[in-house]
Amino acid sequence: MAVQSDVLTRQSAELESSRAHLTRVRRQGRLLVVSEAPLNAEAPRSALRSYLTPAAVRFLRTNFGIPSLDTVSHQVQVGGAVERPFTLRLAELHGMPRRALTITTECAGNHRTSMAPLPAGEPWQGGAVSTASWSGVPLSAVLERAGLRPGCVEVLVSGADAGTTTVGETRYQRSLPAAKAMDPDVLLALEMNGKPIAAAHGGPLRLLVPGWYGMASVKWVSSIEALEANFEGYFQTQRYVYREPGAPPQPVAEMRVKSVFVSPAPSARVRMGAVRVRGLAWSGSAPIAKVKISIGGGGEFAEARLLGRAEPFAWRRWELIWRPPHCGRHVLRCCATDQAGNVQPDAPAWNELGYGANGVQSLAVDVR
Amino acid sequence: MAVQSDVLTRQSAELESSRAHLTRVRRQGRLLVVSEAPLNAEAPRSALRSYLTPAAVRFLRTNFGIPSLDTVSHQVQVGGAVERPFTLRLAELHGMPRRALTITTECAGNHRTSMAPLPAGEPWQGGAVSTASWSGVPLSAVLERAGLRPGCVEVLVSGADAGTTTVGETRYQRSLPAAKAMDPDVLLALEMNGKPIAAAHGGPLRLLVPGWYGMASVKWVSSIEALEANFEGYFQTQRYVYREPGAPPQPVAEMRVKSVFVSPAPSARVRMGAVRVRGLAWSGSAPIAKVKISIGGGGEFAEARLLGRAEPFAWRRWELIWRPPHCGRHVLRCCATDQAGNVQPDAPAWNELGYGANGVQSLAVDVR
Repeated sequence: MAVQSDVLTRQSAELESSRAHLTRVRRQGRLLVVSEAPLNAEAPRSALRSYLTPAAVRFLRTNFGIPSLDTVSHQVQVGGAVERPFTLRLAELHGMPRRALTITTECAGNHRTSMAPLPAGEPWQGGAVSTASWSGVPLSAVLERAGLRPGCVEVLVSGADAGTTTVGETRYQRSLPAAKAMDPDVLLALEMNGKPIAAAHGGPLRLLVPGWYGMASVKWVSSIEALEANFEGYFQTQRYVYREPGAPPQPVAEMRVKSVFVSPAPSARVRMGAVRVRGLAWSGSAPIAKVKISIGGGGEFAEARLLGRAEPFAWRRWELIWRPPHCGRHVLRCCATDQAGNVQPDAPAWNELGYGANGVQSLAVDVR
Repeated sequence: MAVQSDVLTRQSAELESSRAHLTRVRRQGRLLVVSEAPLNAEAPRSALRSYLTPAAVRFLRTNFGIPSLDTVSHQVQVGGAVERPFTLRLAELHGMPRRALTITTECAGNHRTSMAPLPAGEPWQGGAVSTASWSGVPLSAVLERAGLRPGCVEVLVSGADAGTTTVGETRYQRSLPAAKAMDPDVLLALEMNGKPIAAAHGGPLRLLVPGWYGMASVKWVSSIEALEANFEGYFQTQRYVYREPGAPPQPVAEMRVKSVFVSPAPSARVRMGAVRVRGLAWSGSAPIAKVKISIGGGGEFAEARLLGRAEPFAWRRWELIWRPPHCGRHVLRCCATDQAGNVQPDAPAWNELGYGANGVQSLAVDVR
């Protein structure tokens, strides 16, 4: 009974924290609230103008309340199929060698509203993608200290967040294949854009799995467990699975190749002459190879110029100086291809839970 | 040479008239210009609030210049496979018995931008549909006076507008099956909303084929010809044909069943409580039977109340008093069914030229 009462007290505190966050989000007015409880909010279109998304306009994705973990005393249990289970204090992590990676994180349900019929789930319209510089300790360093036993097939990472789902009291937990967990690019992140990670974004400790949709990057990390069998928890097998008609379910993993327009704004009026069209493109599988911009219907297209240097896990900026052939409305579409040969489809592949919507985007422009 | 010079002079005058219309449209700022030459402009969303669309916000659709026909001296040649060919003066038409019908006219390419990939053609976003009260003489009365010969299979109606297409110098011409041409609901219209038809809308004489997409309602009618073989002109066989992959081409005719939201506006912020959701629905095949509003993803829906009386060829208003279950973003979708059992598809059936796009529409609403 005491334990259950503790759980209730904790969940009540988390929901209170979540409500406080909602109030702040509403007051600041910089994010678009998608759901209030749990709190989910997406970035406005203007946030895409920054290569590194400022924290104030980074999308918020929660499944339950927002835990308030102590930034000093928080501990992570490391155990399961390991040689040396141990308790990892945040202070210890701070003392270990760190690396920084610039990572684009997209919610698996981003652009869900582009699917017809609309699948259940948060109706993200396209603002559930952001990029940050994350600094942290490779998960592999922690796993090496613990020593994975030969029978380990997956590593389960659990967040401090929990609540009620259709299967009862559920904690946010996700497993990674053991080989992926040992990938030195998978970070136990302590900082976002050079500052301690805010609670709303998973602070003080968040897993970052670069290239994968956001569900893999567990927030509020509180335990790490080596498993000798595949994890079958709610967020692994009931959610974050592609269920397409007539096909066996597939786990959601790498972000699918996608490109979006940044400017002009939709239905913008621009002067006849050279128009600077800008956008972003990313893929979890490989660097972006090219972005084609189709101009009007009927097959005419131009290739955008990729800007800056390719970073392995971040979106790529692109630009096209477009000279409209005549005044009037033009509809542009952008289509990215990655170096693995993945191409954005004209329409997203519908699936029951609405993940991985990466259909080609359109932009109407009124040329005067 | 003299004839060709006449043609050039006329076309030059029509293009001049078209440019003058463009200037007026731009100055008034009430329509959204889709293309300047030829002039095509669509209604703003707010125009849907009126059951009868005011002339100033009725969509404009032209293929060439806008002819300036004399409202007194204009004549129509009636001939071909008829017993008594004759020349019909406008004054004579004005003296014949008239009837009035309220007719919703939608461009076959309306909502073309909802198709992926985007087909060639004007990128109409949804404002190419309007309703007016038309008054005129049934085409059948004119055909009865001429006397269709038994071998007549189609009636060809030609507009005064012409220009260059991929098949050379082309006049705007469309045929109707003889039985359809004799349908007493098909009008040679002289008035729109109680006033002489403006030149931009086909005045002084326009055919109205209720229930069919707008291409059948030939503007600037200048000749009527009974045919003993099927017409194979450009606008009959090269345009206004459904070309779907793997299926034989089909002529575009009746408007497909469709429903749209009128209010709230997209991404509107509404207060928690009862929300009045309003819209319009129409079908060229049969009266609207019902409009279902789905609420969020996952299959929950409510049935809208159909308002007013059903008019056979006009859109039907509908309304739903919706009580959102919680704050946050909600995505509504409206889906109409007509009395012939036609149901809007979740996504439009793609075809090469982008006609008949009647996929279910979505509306995101932010409930506070």
